[in-house]
Amino acid sequence: MVELSLIGIGTGNPDHVTRQGEAAIRAADLILIPRKGAAKSDLAELRETIIAHACDGTPPRIAHFDIPERRTEDGYLQGVEHWHDAIARAWQAAIAGETPSPRRVALLIWGDPSLYDSSLRIFARLDPRPLVRVIPGITALQALTAAHAIPINEIGAPFVVTTGRRLREDGWPPAANTVAVMLDGTCAFRTLPPADYDIWWGAYLGMAEERLIHGPLTQVADRIEATRAAARADHGWIMDVYLLKKRPAAPA
Amino acid sequence: MVELSLIGIGTGNPDHVTRQGEAAIRAADLILIPRKGAAKSDLAELRETIIAHACDGTPPRIAHFDIPERRTEDGYLQGVEHWHDAIARAWQAAIAGETPSPRRVALLIWGDPSLYDSSLRIFARLDPRPLVRVIPGITALQALTAAHAIPINEIGAPFVVTTGRRLREDGWPPAANTVAVMLDGTCAFRTLPPADYDIWWGAYLGMAEERLIHGPLTQVADRIEATRAAARADHGWIMDVYLLKKRPAAPA
Ligand SMILES: C[S@@+](CC[C@H](N)C(=O)[O-])C[C@H]1O[C@@H](n2cnc3c(N)ncnc32)[C@H](O)[C@@H]1O
Ligand SMILES: C[S@@+](CC[C@H](N)C(=O)[O-])C[C@H]1O[C@@H](n2cnc3c(N)ncnc32)[C@H](O)[C@@H]1O
Repeated sequence: MVELSLIGIGTGNPDHVTRQGEAAIRAADLILIPRKGAAKSDLAELRETIIAHACDGTPPRIAHFDIPERRTEDGYLQGVEHWHDAIARAWQAAIAGETPSPRRVALLIWGDPSLYDSSLRIFARLDPRPLVRVIPGITALQALTAAHAIPINEIGAPFVVTTGRRLREDGWPPAANTVAVMLDGTCAFRTLPPADYDIWWGAYLGMAEERLIHGPLTQVADRIEATRAAARADHGWIMDVYLLKKRPAAPA
Repeated sequence: MVELSLIGIGTGNPDHVTRQGEAAIRAADLILIPRKGAAKSDLAELRETIIAHACDGTPPRIAHFDIPERRTEDGYLQGVEHWHDAIARAWQAAIAGETPSPRRVALLIWGDPSLYDSSLRIFARLDPRPLVRVIPGITALQALTAAHAIPINEIGAPFVVTTGRRLREDGWPPAANTVAVMLDGTCAFRTLPPADYDIWWGAYLGMAEERLIHGPLTQVADRIEATRAAARADHGWIMDVYLLKKRPAAPA
């Protein structure tokens, strides 16, 4: 392999893919695709749609690899490190199994390869290390703000992007008025004093099942939690993301 | 007008545009395009390339509008409010001048419409207010991390996005290890103690003139400042963005 392309494909809508992403799919000799559990077979179909649109009848070779189990007995960060090692081995095995040996390998990355995604860290474990090319893709945050038709920032103001785990463990980040939360399996917004915040929530963004709820936390927190639980039970899995804004203090 | 589409077009590379963006361009009756000073005529060309690619010979009608001057005698936020009012009037005048009256109007938005962009706030001033549709686009931050082939976040960790003005006025945000800075005309990274930070800087991302520099601030700050000044003088304008990471404290 001489080059590995990490191609951001957006977050559920096949039309999120860019011209650059489509060209990179066409230029690949081999596309590596993870084998996923049956519950997420709709995501596998999305990848197939994107490849078919890009290639118009003559798709590149595809190799599937198994995503190894994540060991939970290690601490969080160490568990992640071991998992990345194992995925790097799975990529290398899948590529080694191909003849002729591919020169340009591509991976289709959910959203953007820079945002809460491990592909670049896994790539760094490859030996020998190929060239890497990163092709940006629409993130879940952008799909969220587009669906609600809102800006992410207040005029000229900063914002924080964090995870559910960190919001729960660290509380509201100091000095921030706007916080976007990803990777939250447990409704971490529940740990905030609800009277102080507004929320814009979205699940399955860009997909047929898209769900959107927004309003003051006092009014919508229960509804989000119930909608999330029901959708997850229905669908087998859920991906959701939200934006929180601190309300201006009421005049005394 | 019944619908206004804000179409994110990415940040300099015409191939950043998504399938969804191209479809929205084709679906428009009228595209509103700002008249810019001669210095930025390369940006006007980019818009034309994107429209031509999307439409293959039969582009929608195009109306140009003048971006009003920003008054500087008001305070910062009030100046912005007045400026948004004036731009809303310019949009309305440009649309009113068209017969037959367009039903679907589109604007091509640099990067993503949610990120340090005022179109949604200007839209909110239109009277009567049409439906709005937001189509996400690749941001300058994504172009930056893709060009450097780096993740924006550390594993599972938060990050802050801010402006040059706020970094300069407020200093390094409390509790953050990673900060992305946009809209910085004055190298605000100069106000930080250089020994503590690494920087990944990019200008004209996605464009032929793309410039990239990264390293410890102690080693590259001067070079960035000089490169920025020279490129700006050469080119007439510059757009740059950077990511800063705090270095782990040296063992005592
Ligand atoms: C491992 S991260 C990957 C993020 C991805 N690289 C991106 O750019 O959006 C997965 C998280 O992204 C968010 N996410 C991804 N796709 C989503 C979607 N279609 N709807 C809602 N949230 C989504 C969720 O917060 C989920 O926990
Ligand atoms: C008014 S903001 C608009 C941001 C845009 N909506 C986006 O999504 O990237 C303009 C700032 O974006 C950054 N920027 C936009 N395009 C850029 C490019 N091609 N290269 C470097 N920075 C860019 C710069 O920091 C610039 O000051």
